[in-house]
Amino acid sequence: MASEPEAPRRRHVGEYVRSGDWSDYWTTRISRAEGGKIWVRGYPIEELIERLSATEATFLLLRGELPDERETAVFDLALRCGFDQQLINSAACAARFTASAFPESAVPALASGMLATGSVTGSPQEPAQMLIDAVAQGLEESEAARRVVSGWLESRGWVPGLGHPLHKQGEPRALTLRRVAGELDGWRAHGRMLDAIEAELARRKGRQIPINLAGAVAAVLADLGFEPLMIGGLGALGYGVALLAHIVEEIREGVPLRIIPEAHGARYAGPEERHLPAGRNRRAP
Amino acid sequence: MASEPEAPRRRHVGEYVRSGDWSDYWTTRISRAEGGKIWVRGYPIEELIERLSATEATFLLLRGELPDERETAVFDLALRCGFDQQLINSAACAARFTASAFPESAVPALASGMLATGSVTGSPQEPAQMLIDAVAQGLEESEAARRVVSGWLESRGWVPGLGHPLHKQGEPRALTLRRVAGELDGWRAHGRMLDAIEAELARRKGRQIPINLAGAVAAVLADLGFEPLMIGGLGALGYGVALLAHIVEEIREGVPLRIIPEAHGARYAGPEERHLPAGRNRRAP
Amino acid sequence: MASEPEAPRRRHVGEYVRSGDWSDYWTTRISRAEGGKIWVRGYPIEELIERLSATEATFLLLRGELPDERETAVFDLALRCGFDQQLINSAACAARFTASAFPESAVPALASGMLATGSVTGSPQEPAQMLIDAVAQGLEESEAARRVVSGWLESRGWVPGLGHPLHKQGEPRALTLRRVAGELDGWRAHGRMLDAIEAELARRKGRQIPINLAGAVAAVLADLGFEPLMIGGLGALGYGVALLAHIVEEIREGVPLRIIPEAHGARYAGPEERHLPAGRNRRAP
Amino acid sequence: MASEPEAPRRRHVGEYVRSGDWSDYWTTRISRAEGGKIWVRGYPIEELIERLSATEATFLLLRGELPDERETAVFDLALRCGFDQQLINSAACAARFTASAFPESAVPALASGMLATGSVTGSPQEPAQMLIDAVAQGLEESEAARRVVSGWLESRGWVPGLGHPLHKQGEPRALTLRRVAGELDGWRAHGRMLDAIEAELARRKGRQIPINLAGAVAAVLADLGFEPLMIGGLGALGYGVALLAHIVEEIREGVPLRIIPEAHGARYAGPEERHLPAGRNRRAP
Repeated sequence: MASEPEAPRRRHVGEYVRSGDWSDYWTTRISRAEGGKIWVRGYPIEELIERLSATEATFLLLRGELPDERETAVFDLALRCGFDQQLINSAACAARFTASAFPESAVPALASGMLATGSVTGSPQEPAQMLIDAVAQGLEESEAARRVVSGWLESRGWVPGLGHPLHKQGEPRALTLRRVAGELDGWRAHGRMLDAIEAELARRKGRQIPINLAGAVAAVLADLGFEPLMIGGLGALGYGVALLAHIVEEIREGVPLRIIPEAHGARYAGPEERHLPAGRNRRAP
Repeated sequence: MASEPEAPRRRHVGEYVRSGDWSDYWTTRISRAEGGKIWVRGYPIEELIERLSATEATFLLLRGELPDERETAVFDLALRCGFDQQLINSAACAARFTASAFPESAVPALASGMLATGSVTGSPQEPAQMLIDAVAQGLEESEAARRVVSGWLESRGWVPGLGHPLHKQGEPRALTLRRVAGELDGWRAHGRMLDAIEAELARRKGRQIPINLAGAVAAVLADLGFEPLMIGGLGALGYGVALLAHIVEEIREGVPLRIIPEAHGARYAGPEERHLPAGRNRRAP
Repeated sequence: MASEPEAPRRRHVGEYVRSGDWSDYWTTRISRAEGGKIWVRGYPIEELIERLSATEATFLLLRGELPDERETAVFDLALRCGFDQQLINSAACAARFTASAFPESAVPALASGMLATGSVTGSPQEPAQMLIDAVAQGLEESEAARRVVSGWLESRGWVPGLGHPLHKQGEPRALTLRRVAGELDGWRAHGRMLDAIEAELARRKGRQIPINLAGAVAAVLADLGFEPLMIGGLGALGYGVALLAHIVEEIREGVPLRIIPEAHGARYAGPEERHLPAGRNRRAP
Repeated sequence: MASEPEAPRRRHVGEYVRSGDWSDYWTTRISRAEGGKIWVRGYPIEELIERLSATEATFLLLRGELPDERETAVFDLALRCGFDQQLINSAACAARFTASAFPESAVPALASGMLATGSVTGSPQEPAQMLIDAVAQGLEESEAARRVVSGWLESRGWVPGLGHPLHKQGEPRALTLRRVAGELDGWRAHGRMLDAIEAELARRKGRQIPINLAGAVAAVLADLGFEPLMIGGLGALGYGVALLAHIVEEIREGVPLRIIPEAHGARYAGPEERHLPAGRNRRAP
């Protein structure tokens, strides 16, 4: 079982300035290079490259310990669920416009698209935080779900991890992820909490607002012991593969210097033509 | 006097999908191009280029109306305050590392450095939101300040817009900005609210925690009628000029492929050398 | 007149590793902070904030020396020319999609939009490099122009800084910038070289392909002594203001979770529905 | 065997403006969503999630066709080789500075770090382009290598994909990747070309400048049929996992508001203190 050693206390830069001791300013527990050798989380890099799969190596690098067989299977499942992204997605569109303008490298467009994996598009970070906080309270599931749903409906009017603008009966990826995760024993306390939250919201609204992909990915990764920041980052990296497909398609087959044309509804709704007042000339600030 | 017309209601993409009417999907009140002519906020672009200063044109573009003389002077002041950035700054460092690795263009490093103008480095967005909310309550200043300080100390332990890790007696830029803004009649309700919050925090802590640059810029821009999102964006653009100076210095005079060396305290604190269990070989997910 | 002191030789990180002497690893000629004081390019920050305009301070920060009156006027002109951006622009579109998905801050969308100011959209970096190289050869203008045009037509089929997909008779901003720069004595050797290149290309093609905004901005900034990397960066920062207007409009009045709908021509052209071969199941790598 | 269907011709936006026909403006061959169903490259998304590994799904999404067993094994190998990144790396440093300043989400720091995977840090894009061009010439390997080495030494003084500032005897990851790729029949024409280039450069220089990780990854991915843009993007995504480990470590255990302190060699080398000329006051542009 993977588990992380306790993290050292975080120290503000002001403490360093006051003490004048910068000796542990750049400390890392991830990897080491010395005398022509490299270790990752303590293991010689050669062993990892030769004997682990990419999925296992990713888990080790992020968490510090090797995954067991169940963890490997569930983690791989979560990784491959974020891959599809149609043009029906803000991140793919941001990436394609950037690629249209910066075709020499895929990297600026990748960065641009990842920056568009915010709270609205479906980052799993916020649902993960919600589920982890809810499970940590140690309450009975339906009681915890009641509190979570009440809290979010009051503060924001909706609940993270549930609902989709188009797939009203359930997002196919979310449904498949939830089912296969269950078969692999990967839908545990955080998954059940999400089920309870879905049920509670349906009760309150009188209609089902199904678990979406961000919610299902958040539950599976939280059940594997990942924390919300890392879950959000994995969500962005997962998008990355589909973004890369779009970016290369855009640069090879798309349209240089893309615009949004009037034919697609670009419309000006500002003031009519007007002119600077007579005598208005640059003012010295 | 600049004032913004009322904004149309925001509509979620689901509403468009349901209605099938996408005719106003891409609406803008900023500018228009037609038949070889361009208008910005209604004015022909030629007039703006010929008769406005860059500061006036920036104000018009962002706010929709021309600034008067006082507004021009105060806005220019706010713009030029964010310029200095030493190596004593996370954003300049992020930009320099990116420039060290991507020297063909300054743009990726600019993006990288701007992304590092978050809440910790000193974005004025959060202090602006705090000041605007406080003024909007319509309370007497000292009463509003008491509530603001209590709220932030409880929820986070510190107050946005106040304090600096190094300049304990007041940041020189913040002091100068506050003084010159006062002389230009640019330190008004939001500025006075920040003064009141500074006084209240000093009372509570028994020592002064002075207004920092983010706080002073937030107050001045809020007093000019800018809103928090735009104030945060102006903060990032303001950094941009100093970042550009650093980026070009890095690419022309710096070190390609920069690292953080052991001589600067890079230190590994993870597990000692260890090996994969015998027989551990790639697991099929 | 502004002029830059000679830059020190750039040293590769390998030299530091070999020598073990890291004492000048982080050297900057931009600014200094010490004992509660800040200097930019040698000047106390208080003087700059109080007595320079934002345009003058920008010039000083980037170039190391104060601009004179002519330089201030021409530089301000160049800064305000990049401001307009309609939806007719890849960068504004990338920024709006990112803003649609990441509405908590304008900064990620700013970064995203700036990354889309690549070579295709109209970065002035490449035309600036072309003009500076051409002027540096010391040839007669029409001869230099012949060589430049031949070189670019052969290697890429078009010439940087000339042509626009929509404004076939001349981009209004480019025309105004060129005219006003001339009036301010800001259209000098690099500007005249661009004129000669435009004339030569017209001669070769039999029709005018007019100077575009990137070309005109490049000429003016090169005539002020800026170098190509910095000119490209100034282009991106100049876009930044218009991007910020679009980003805030998107977050306040736009559409959360934007997509490109079928109604706007989203179309799938890949393989028809097909299925995994029977028995195809996850392969261990 | 995976192979890509021929790409449609790329059309410039001007062609659309002239024709007025925007019906195929947004065309994609990647995926489709309709009536609550999603297909990727023609396959129902449920099949991919249930029956492919993340590595196979990545290959399919990027290339359009399923990998066979050999391709799966070699591709997984390439993916897991980019994972280690010490502080000895510009990208990790850029990401950590951004994370230090923007701790609410890992995404801005991921973008920032990826932007620092430029040509200098070791993007595999440029070596991939070099190898693909060299193989495409159809010359005998040693002759092709002679031309490649001559070309790069003349134009830039070094050869992409070879050499490392610290690992003078060979980078451990590059050595392992090359060896294991050979065992998996993944070191083919592009790999052999890289060997020939390494040998030719050693002959010219009189000492070995060994294949580095970027070079080895480029050869393996080119031998799998990937193209340079996508290889560069995969390099950035591969870094992403290590960047995410660093980012979360920074936010949880690092230093908020990081600077580069004098103790680490931050040094000012610009002009001494000076003052604005008497009477210098803001100049109207």
